Amino acid sequence: MRTLKLTVAYDGTNYVGWQRQENGLSIQQVIEEAFAPLMGAGPAGGPPPAVVGAGRTDAGVHALGQVASVTMDCDLTTSAVQGALNVRMPLDVRVVEVADAPIGFHARSQAAGKTYRYRVATAPVLSPFDRLYVFHAPGRYDVPAMRTAAALLVGRRDFASFQTTGSWPLDTVRTMLRLDVQETGDELTMEVDGDGFLRHMVRAIAGTLLEVGLGRRAPETVTAVLEARDRGAAGRTLPASGLTLVTVRY
Amino acid sequence: MRTLKLTVAYDGTNYVGWQRQENGLSIQQVIEEAFAPLMGAGPAGGPPPAVVGAGRTDAGVHALGQVASVTMDCDLTTSAVQGALNVRMPLDVRVVEVADAPIGFHARSQAAGKTYRYRVATAPVLSPFDRLYVFHAPGRYDVPAMRTAAALLVGRRDFASFQTTGSWPLDTVRTMLRLDVQETGDELTMEVDGDGFLRHMVRAIAGTLLEVGLGRRAPETVTAVLEARDRGAAGRTLPASGLTLVTVRY
Repeated sequence: MRTLKLTVAYDGTNYVGWQRQENGLSIQQVIEEAFAPLMGAGPAGGPPPAVVGAGRTDAGVHALGQVASVTMDCDLTTSAVQGALNVRMPLDVRVVEVADAPIGFHARSQAAGKTYRYRVATAPVLSPFDRLYVFHAPGRYDVPAMRTAAALLVGRRDFASFQTTGSWPLDTVRTMLRLDVQETGDELTMEVDGDGFLRHMVRAIAGTLLEVGLGRRAPETVTAVLEARDRGAAGRTLPASGLTLVTVRY
Repeated sequence: MRTLKLTVAYDGTNYVGWQRQENGLSIQQVIEEAFAPLMGAGPAGGPPPAVVGAGRTDAGVHALGQVASVTMDCDLTTSAVQGALNVRMPLDVRVVEVADAPIGFHARSQAAGKTYRYRVATAPVLSPFDRLYVFHAPGRYDVPAMRTAAALLVGRRDFASFQTTGSWPLDTVRTMLRLDVQETGDELTMEVDGDGFLRHMVRAIAGTLLEVGLGRRAPETVTAVLEARDRGAAGRTLPASGLTLVTVRY
């Protein structure tokens, strides 16, 4: 047996998300099915192995550096595995690296942290080339106010107010190491680094910061939002398409 | 009557090209139909006006700064026209500017020149986010050799060898003002500025330069390619998706 660590990039537009689901095609299914011919002896291969992703990205969310693990029997070199997978997958899912990992390496449970990026286009007209990757929210934003609010969210906090209601984790405390707000031309980028994220948490944080940037919320009020532990206290969840999983740390 | 100059950006992936055709949706049709409600008196408007594009981009070719002209009766401000068009069009076609032009301004016949860009990804794995906009040709390219060949194509030349066979223009002489080859990370960009282009000419030039970059053709041989006036003498026509109409000069 052998455990491989895959680094995967994908355009999430046409998928139901990372995780296998009944109602549509997932990134996980695409990768698992590409593995099938590498399994077992015959030309048809064997049953596909389970591929575990570090982050269960939602439908429409993208990835530059998703990490996945798979434990299987396979004699191929890592570059042959990469080539065999990429040749079998659609062009919107690419394995950018394959490496051998310690037997039993588990991409999700062993992840130490992840970086997500949320992109917002602020110009009146959205570029056709950004439409699937950037949320369009034309306007003028007070970036220093957004940074003040962001700084209040960094640290070990209870993020219950930023979790979609009905989600299962009872322990809603997470540590956010960094939450940067950058403005480049007509684009605002919010990049967050943390040990873990609740469901829709990054998109709810981004929505809250945008309201701060528009002056609809004072930056200091995010402390009260955290204390409320109530989803209604925070801003709205922005669309999935603006979100990208950038890297996973181990 | 009034003549408007439109600057248009589009992701050409889902279109049959600029020009109206029977077999699918064109950019021209999308814009003309968005104009219809602005025409005439009733709520349904009138018949859409003819919108003339500076460049007849092919199926799958993109534009950052296509220019189009339209002569019509309309009392709206230019920014109201822009807003009305964009709200009616799909997000992969955007009017980025509307300006009043001299009555009778004709985007195609009055164009003095155009700039096209062809993008090539050279890394072994193509980013999923580039797949619709960049041609994937992994390898190592001799960029100085490509520049030597490019320089031999600049000027007033007979480009018959770079025109798709069966195309109609009998006069195949064009003036190419500039043909730059740039390498940035894992991307090669060929940008060309000229007074006019034959059918598939930019894509055939890009294909020829790539062969020079791979050492399959000596740079000096492009002079013989020009002299041959034979499509078979030049390199292959690269796919439409790598090509973008960048600007039109007047």
